[in-house]
Amino acid sequence: MRSLPFTKNDLEAMAAKWPTPFHIYDAAAISRNAEALKAAFKWNKGFREYFAVKATPNPHILKLLSKHGFGCDCSSLAELVLSEKSGITGQNIMFTSNDTPGEEFLKAYELGAVINLDDITHWPFLLETIKEVPELMCCRYNPGPTRDGNDIIGRPEEAKYGLTYEQIFQCYEMMRDAGVKRFGIHTMIASNELDRRYIVETADMLFKLAVELNEKLGIKIEFVNIGGGIGIPYKPEQEAINLDILGQEIHDAYKKIIEPSPLSEVALYMECGRSITGPYGYLVSRVLHFKDTYRHYAGLDACMSNLMRPALYGAYHEIVVPGKENSPDQLVYDVTGSLCENNDKFAIGRKLPRLERGDFVVICDTGAHGHAMGFQYNGKLRSAELLLEEDGNVRQIRRAETLDDYFATLSFDEL
Amino acid sequence: MRSLPFTKNDLEAMAAKWPTPFHIYDAAAISRNAEALKAAFKWNKGFREYFAVKATPNPHILKLLSKHGFGCDCSSLAELVLSEKSGITGQNIMFTSNDTPGEEFLKAYELGAVINLDDITHWPFLLETIKEVPELMCCRYNPGPTRDGNDIIGRPEEAKYGLTYEQIFQCYEMMRDAGVKRFGIHTMIASNELDRRYIVETADMLFKLAVELNEKLGIKIEFVNIGGGIGIPYKPEQEAINLDILGQEIHDAYKKIIEPSPLSEVALYMECGRSITGPYGYLVSRVLHFKDTYRHYAGLDACMSNLMRPALYGAYHEIVVPGKENSPDQLVYDVTGSLCENNDKFAIGRKLPRLERGDFVVICDTGAHGHAMGFQYNGKLRSAELLLEEDGNVRQIRRAETLDDYFATLSFDEL
Repeated sequence: MRSLPFTKNDLEAMAAKWPTPFHIYDAAAISRNAEALKAAFKWNKGFREYFAVKATPNPHILKLLSKHGFGCDCSSLAELVLSEKSGITGQNIMFTSNDTPGEEFLKAYELGAVINLDDITHWPFLLETIKEVPELMCCRYNPGPTRDGNDIIGRPEEAKYGLTYEQIFQCYEMMRDAGVKRFGIHTMIASNELDRRYIVETADMLFKLAVELNEKLGIKIEFVNIGGGIGIPYKPEQEAINLDILGQEIHDAYKKIIEPSPLSEVALYMECGRSITGPYGYLVSRVLHFKDTYRHYAGLDACMSNLMRPALYGAYHEIVVPGKENSPDQLVYDVTGSLCENNDKFAIGRKLPRLERGDFVVICDTGAHGHAMGFQYNGKLRSAELLLEEDGNVRQIRRAETLDDYFATLSFDEL
Repeated sequence: MRSLPFTKNDLEAMAAKWPTPFHIYDAAAISRNAEALKAAFKWNKGFREYFAVKATPNPHILKLLSKHGFGCDCSSLAELVLSEKSGITGQNIMFTSNDTPGEEFLKAYELGAVINLDDITHWPFLLETIKEVPELMCCRYNPGPTRDGNDIIGRPEEAKYGLTYEQIFQCYEMMRDAGVKRFGIHTMIASNELDRRYIVETADMLFKLAVELNEKLGIKIEFVNIGGGIGIPYKPEQEAINLDILGQEIHDAYKKIIEPSPLSEVALYMECGRSITGPYGYLVSRVLHFKDTYRHYAGLDACMSNLMRPALYGAYHEIVVPGKENSPDQLVYDVTGSLCENNDKFAIGRKLPRLERGDFVVICDTGAHGHAMGFQYNGKLRSAELLLEEDGNVRQIRRAETLDDYFATLSFDEL
């Protein structure tokens, strides 16, 4: 049973102020985790994590992470503006987009972000758009059939992202010849990966490519961004990646490949999202209805608009019932939301303490790709987000949507 | 090749006013389709279609359909308020919800909607909530293992919806004894079904249940709502359900079961969404980028936020390139959006006319479950909706989202 950073009484106090459902994030745990990541990679002087904004696009989370030295990994105009409004600009932003509209390149350049190209044709498109040659450039590498696939992103050769091996050399040569002075290289080929070796192999692959780019083009890669994709143990039987061992193994590859090369020193960048905040967010809801038909249902006041992963992917999320953690009286429930889609179920056939109407039901691991993925389908509104601060105070960091928000883009005048 | 209700020149004129991407709905075609449905069921005096609002929750679409006598099938507070604001109230609304919060029952009752219960426990909950006994009530029947499953909703016994056979009798008896005077019965066990027989069997099943309720409880079912679920032929090789034959076959069942019974006359209700507007909506976008790596990509200025079905379900949607309909020069493309998810692809390996940057790309069958399902993940904004009116004019019926909408629930003050 997962232990929570709040009690049933704490939840009662919160719910009196902010009605359920809401997401709540544990700032102290996020901070500890951020420091643990940095510690695992302290052997690398330039180590930097760029938080994948799409995981939890809330300025208070971005700000919290920036206090630990994290930057922002942005991939859309809205995410660039969100970072800017959160006070995070310049090379604290890495802009990694695909099928990129010109206005996004313009905004990224205006903010001084590190621009990471997804395609070789984006280089002339970028120049045409910004009318200048950036000092620093990066490209996203897609290793194609030379790497196996990851369950979520799929086989690299079927992924829409990045440049091929041949294109990488062509593109860096064009950039060098156009006057780019500083270079980084990037890849992102995994998502929610719990096999440490896949991440280490990715670092190994990029270290070698950085050395090869130096050999063939005489350019000096300043940073290697191995992307994110570190998974989290959603299921009780899964194990988190040991960050210290990951750091050591990547250090081993670095010592073998980078240190003896003319590059000698390269900054290691990551752009994790899920592993930074995922385990430290909770969707708090209450039991609204029970239903006994062909199965036994507990209906919550939350629905898939608050957390899409179970409905979309059949994903498992731990469920805790505060105040009943040790109850011996257990029943098997399908835990449902009220959205008019039969896949709106947070759990199917889950053994839980016997529930009563009004019980708090806490769905774990919603700190990433939770609120962010919500839709308004079926007229459902997205919930508030709260932050449990390091001093124990709770504050609202996003208000719940209202009907006015739902109707904001409609006009009823000329009906 | 699908024929479109607009030309490339028409699109140029629209795009000058409303930048792509946008959805556009064909009012004349929706009207013709609405009349065709009514014609197929004109043998039934009380026939009524309640449009499933969640498919296309736009007041201008609801209003257009109400001119053809259609009501609204609502399943959330926002949908109830949307119907009200669209001028559709009273028994023109059927309220079919599950895991229903009290405030939704209150609003439905206040509007005079037909309340359709999803569960036997909702009857006492409703009474406790509204403090009155409604004159008219309906329940949703779930036939459980007695019916096979539909591909999308799944097997009825695994669906969270509705009352069992035994509960139906218990619930109508309780309602009758509490003073309810008028009754209807409902089911909804299919989604996107192209096998006419499944729909006919559903009508047959409910007709028999209506007669049985009369025999056992002495109550007179006024209407039988067989739900929606009529599919549309997304793929070229699929065939639409013939509405006239469907109407005749349901009429045959009606003549066999209802007419000889003491009920003698029962109104037939439906609550189709997809089949009413689905084929008459189009997502209009333009080509932004080409990319050749391990596959050949055409990147659009639309993304899965505008149309989730291909990414979510791998669903097929026809793609037309206006002005190049008859081009002999064809290539195979993966047609992608710019969202930072590898499943953001409108088509994979699709043969299309050779595309050029700026070409309009029209994705068909987005008139239902298109805009409505969009999310803002990755900071992507939802597009405008336009209506091609019956007189040929085009007007905007929903504005595109802006960054201000995206930031509406956030506060940057106390960062």
